[in-house]
Amino acid sequence: MTPKNGIAHDFEAECAAGGDAPRLAAAVALLEIGDQAGLLAPIESGDEFTAGSLAAAAGLPEVSVAGYLEALESADIIQPVGAGSFRAADDFDVIQHQAGFISWTMNANRPFIDNAREFLTDLDRGSGIDLRDGRKVAVSSAWMGSKAFYPAILSTMVEMKPALAVDLGAGTCRLLIEVLQNVPGVRAVGLDMDPYACREAERCADRAGVGDRLDVVERSIQSVADDPAMLAGADVIHAGYVFHDMFPTEADIAHKVLENCREALRDNGLMAITEIVPYLRNERERRFSAIVTYYHRQFMKRRPLTEEEWIGKLRAAGFSSVRAVELAFPTGRLFLATK
Amino acid sequence: MTPKNGIAHDFEAECAAGGDAPRLAAAVALLEIGDQAGLLAPIESGDEFTAGSLAAAAGLPEVSVAGYLEALESADIIQPVGAGSFRAADDFDVIQHQAGFISWTMNANRPFIDNAREFLTDLDRGSGIDLRDGRKVAVSSAWMGSKAFYPAILSTMVEMKPALAVDLGAGTCRLLIEVLQNVPGVRAVGLDMDPYACREAERCADRAGVGDRLDVVERSIQSVADDPAMLAGADVIHAGYVFHDMFPTEADIAHKVLENCREALRDNGLMAITEIVPYLRNERERRFSAIVTYYHRQFMKRRPLTEEEWIGKLRAAGFSSVRAVELAFPTGRLFLATK
Repeated sequence: MTPKNGIAHDFEAECAAGGDAPRLAAAVALLEIGDQAGLLAPIESGDEFTAGSLAAAAGLPEVSVAGYLEALESADIIQPVGAGSFRAADDFDVIQHQAGFISWTMNANRPFIDNAREFLTDLDRGSGIDLRDGRKVAVSSAWMGSKAFYPAILSTMVEMKPALAVDLGAGTCRLLIEVLQNVPGVRAVGLDMDPYACREAERCADRAGVGDRLDVVERSIQSVADDPAMLAGADVIHAGYVFHDMFPTEADIAHKVLENCREALRDNGLMAITEIVPYLRNERERRFSAIVTYYHRQFMKRRPLTEEEWIGKLRAAGFSSVRAVELAFPTGRLFLATK
Repeated sequence: MTPKNGIAHDFEAECAAGGDAPRLAAAVALLEIGDQAGLLAPIESGDEFTAGSLAAAAGLPEVSVAGYLEALESADIIQPVGAGSFRAADDFDVIQHQAGFISWTMNANRPFIDNAREFLTDLDRGSGIDLRDGRKVAVSSAWMGSKAFYPAILSTMVEMKPALAVDLGAGTCRLLIEVLQNVPGVRAVGLDMDPYACREAERCADRAGVGDRLDVVERSIQSVADDPAMLAGADVIHAGYVFHDMFPTEADIAHKVLENCREALRDNGLMAITEIVPYLRNERERRFSAIVTYYHRQFMKRRPLTEEEWIGKLRAAGFSSVRAVELAFPTGRLFLATK
């Protein structure tokens, strides 16, 4: 309604103005609280739980856990399934996926926000990448990635039915473990420089019953420039969001890594690079593309390459039939190149 | 598509799964960066600006400001209006409003997330409210509130055409300044215990040309229990999101404040309380209601009152015809009570 005095007040329009923001804001905060308190793993497993079972698993007082579950249930993030028992809501995976985008910009990269003025003032300040908490980056990336990073490359890898699949910068080897579960007999090599991620990858692979077919190698992607032996004969080599760390300062090393990957692949083997590309302008991607690009350029002092530049890099390393695939993950592209 | 091997990969569905989260995540981070760097005020004014004008106003290198504006423009948060000139996008107010919800849960209340395990472990831990940065609470609340806290009470106050309007816990007196601008001859009293907010209120009122009709009083709402003199003869007294700080530990003081407000009002004068109510269950409000309630109960050790409890408190203080109005702001209610 617009009263005579001209102060507009329209309840429906005011509700609409908030959009999905209140719901998303609440969900990400509640999930981060659960993660910080050590309560999230049993919930995201999809199994039933009670305040008592969660409290015992997390080593927290039951009354505190009950209060947290009251909030989650009222928020429709978990559902009651009987007297005192709950399980994750049917759309928990979607809630967590969406929360991941916010957790990445607002928690994993918070040191950049909190020190923005310092970064903008000091033109000689180096990369701020070490200010970030690696665990927060990994957790938010896993939440984001559950629906949008991996489906295209996972589908591509499984369809190939490879004998040997490699992931460079494999983290906890989530992608490879899914490939191992879906392709009988395939072997996989996951390379990551983070010891915690490597040990977690081994544990996850064992739990999934595929540990005997996965080699976890604790090494940097840069090391492939010197020693690509563990890639020999691979049908497919993937690198997800790790090559961009080599630009602009290690472009020569990146070139050598690509050449060595090509050399190591079997004939007609596939090189697959999942990467961010800067400042896309289409409606779907432009806003998230802007923050991803800006964080990398201004705060991490990286130079994300364009689609054309990635295609050029792969061709320069000797690959043929190079192509880019649009990903659901905004500002992400999958580059596929054949030996 | 679902390939023969059964690994589903559906680009459209994967895009849809992200919903509005990537866009919101980006917008709130970009706005918080601008706020932290001191670049936001000239942008949100709606006036034209250049990298040079913003850099001069903020005392930052122009090259840094140009990089920030490149990100904002690519994100469609500002628009070019000529060679090197920009202004806020037409929907900037909506972007900022939505960002407010996320900034409040993920920045203003971050100490609760980051110390969740400690709060859940220590059952005797007192209120954590002092862990919060008051400025972050004020900024995110102002962003949230621009579309949804105030329209109902603003419309109510302006329609009354009061001679004297009072706001308890007035912050920077945004509500009162709008009333002063829209009702010729009205006088207003804004009470707040924060000296920074009081000085800012005076500056804002002067800039708006209504400073001669606004009295800013640096006092707590609790002080009204002892001395309500400055409220005498008011046509309307509003208190927005401040009474709940008195529950559960200062319920007696709250009762006395309400009684004194009623006594001070002119006959048929209006008491208006904007408040949060706990754990609403309707689809629109339940998720945001859950995080607001949980933050207050678990971390701030407050006890938000239900709609019925607020109505009871107002009746117990002697008010008649007490009613609750649903607000667009999720989990907010406006209680209106007549002397």
